Amino acid sequence: MRIMENKRETNDIFRWIAPELELLEQTLAEALASPVPLIAEIGMHLVRSGGKRLRPALYLLAAKSCERFDEKKAMPLAAAVELIHMASLVHDDVIDHAETRRGTETANAKWGNQIAVLTGDHMFARAFSLVSRKGYSEDIGDRLAALVQGLCAGEILQDSALYTANHNLEEYERRIAMKTADFLAICCELGGLVGGASAEVCAGLKAYGKAVGMAFQITDDLLDVTGDAERIGKPAGNDIRQGVVTLPVICALDASPAREELCTIITNRNMTDEMVIRALEIVRASDGIATARIRAAAYLDEARRALPETVGGEARDAFLEAAAYIGKRDF
Amino acid sequence: MRIMENKRETNDIFRWIAPELELLEQTLAEALASPVPLIAEIGMHLVRSGGKRLRPALYLLAAKSCERFDEKKAMPLAAAVELIHMASLVHDDVIDHAETRRGTETANAKWGNQIAVLTGDHMFARAFSLVSRKGYSEDIGDRLAALVQGLCAGEILQDSALYTANHNLEEYERRIAMKTADFLAICCELGGLVGGASAEVCAGLKAYGKAVGMAFQITDDLLDVTGDAERIGKPAGNDIRQGVVTLPVICALDASPAREELCTIITNRNMTDEMVIRALEIVRASDGIATARIRAAAYLDEARRALPETVGGEARDAFLEAAAYIGKRDF
Repeated sequence: MRIMENKRETNDIFRWIAPELELLEQTLAEALASPVPLIAEIGMHLVRSGGKRLRPALYLLAAKSCERFDEKKAMPLAAAVELIHMASLVHDDVIDHAETRRGTETANAKWGNQIAVLTGDHMFARAFSLVSRKGYSEDIGDRLAALVQGLCAGEILQDSALYTANHNLEEYERRIAMKTADFLAICCELGGLVGGASAEVCAGLKAYGKAVGMAFQITDDLLDVTGDAERIGKPAGNDIRQGVVTLPVICALDASPAREELCTIITNRNMTDEMVIRALEIVRASDGIATARIRAAAYLDEARRALPETVGGEARDAFLEAAAYIGKRDF
Repeated sequence: MRIMENKRETNDIFRWIAPELELLEQTLAEALASPVPLIAEIGMHLVRSGGKRLRPALYLLAAKSCERFDEKKAMPLAAAVELIHMASLVHDDVIDHAETRRGTETANAKWGNQIAVLTGDHMFARAFSLVSRKGYSEDIGDRLAALVQGLCAGEILQDSALYTANHNLEEYERRIAMKTADFLAICCELGGLVGGASAEVCAGLKAYGKAVGMAFQITDDLLDVTGDAERIGKPAGNDIRQGVVTLPVICALDASPAREELCTIITNRNMTDEMVIRALEIVRASDGIATARIRAAAYLDEARRALPETVGGEARDAFLEAAAYIGKRDF
């Protein structure tokens, strides 16, 4: 149910590109077809498991906002950015031993770690094959490769800082930029490039994507502290349990009267459920939530301001609505 | 010690491209440099752990055998094919929970599965970034992407057939082609393409690589049955233990008087060391080893015949020596 609602909500925001998003589903299904039956089966499972398709949606929005938009030319790259996102989630689920994602069984739960790691690799390669020989300029492949490297580097940075307490805003923002915001920034920039926009417009689109991405990840991190389990589809305090220190926690570590207790909990690799609940209490009582909300709102303002003036009409409305959606989302 | 000997032996075979192989090591080290200290550290560990560099060596050999060879232009792609090989080994080691490779600690043993999976992803992406913006034609990126997809598909095929007994020569050869031989074939073909060879010469180089790759994998599979643990650097019967059914075993399953006992052992996911030893006895007593040797030799003949006539002099000697080395290698 939850998945369907999320999907409807994003479909509503991106209704201006509804035909393109429909074609995307078909392109994804075709891209994951394979003469090896098991690969085809896993591919179909992953496409059907859904997802918000936020990355290709932003890319297609940016592309369609440009004068020289050509749906046929734009589509393989839309599928490629979603495949990269899907592949990284498949590997994340292996790493986290996750059993379900969006209410559906994960690839590792269904087919084992071995097959899941290889499936992720296969999808990354499929993404790169979608952009070669398709008449894209060579810097598109380069940006895609840089995107994956940044994504991995962000995760590696995060993993090497798990269960530590010496974080600050700057380090946090660098980490979420690499993990999330740069991806959305590159999607918007790629849309501009494929749409034939000027360097200036591409830079504006990229800045919009970056700011929206920062707000998106901060909101995600906020929801882990404030959200109820049923609505967000995973138990609250999941980041704390996994040793990931987010903005509300960093604020609480800085200013909460119970900061020493919080520090002891979040650096404990064997923390109990009770400890997670107590940590959430401390964070919720601090100004961490308010600070994170302000920070997310500031990034959304930045996104609106970054939007190039050449982007008008329905395209502009869609970009502004996407920013508004990220600001108020509660799942 | 073993590693150094292997390395010296391959260096000797590929002495005609010694300067290029030296530059390759430098290019690899540069390619794995990173502003994220942990990524740089893991990269150095992996480059220093060595390996035969067989794939980039065949590529460089093919490229240097062509008239329009340009070392500077050829080098990034040489590093890219080795990075793809390294990345797939890093993921293999995660999948197999391997603690050491070539006598050195694996990335997963040293840094954990999480970091190792991400490091492999990062290296795949690095490989693709090495070939974009380097003036290579766009079908080079396409071939590289196809290579990774084939590699993964071969492994997935193999994994979905683990601990089963209904194999035949055709299925086995399809599997090792995807897993190994197609990689070597593409390396040789890429060398031709980068060297500016004609379509005919490229096809000949590719056919050489494919046949040499088939012989290489059959020999590898043979060594798992015949080799002593110390020399090959892993316990004999490793494939049998892991449920991988290779050519000598397929022959024994077909014709050994003890074929039913062998079938019972190799389909047992909980086989003991004693069962592995008994399976090896049965296979060694069958004609499986002789059959596999004949098959490998036939492929090496095919490789020699496939070598384009335009490849002469020192280049031809090196190609023939590489084939001879694969025929007689015992590690």
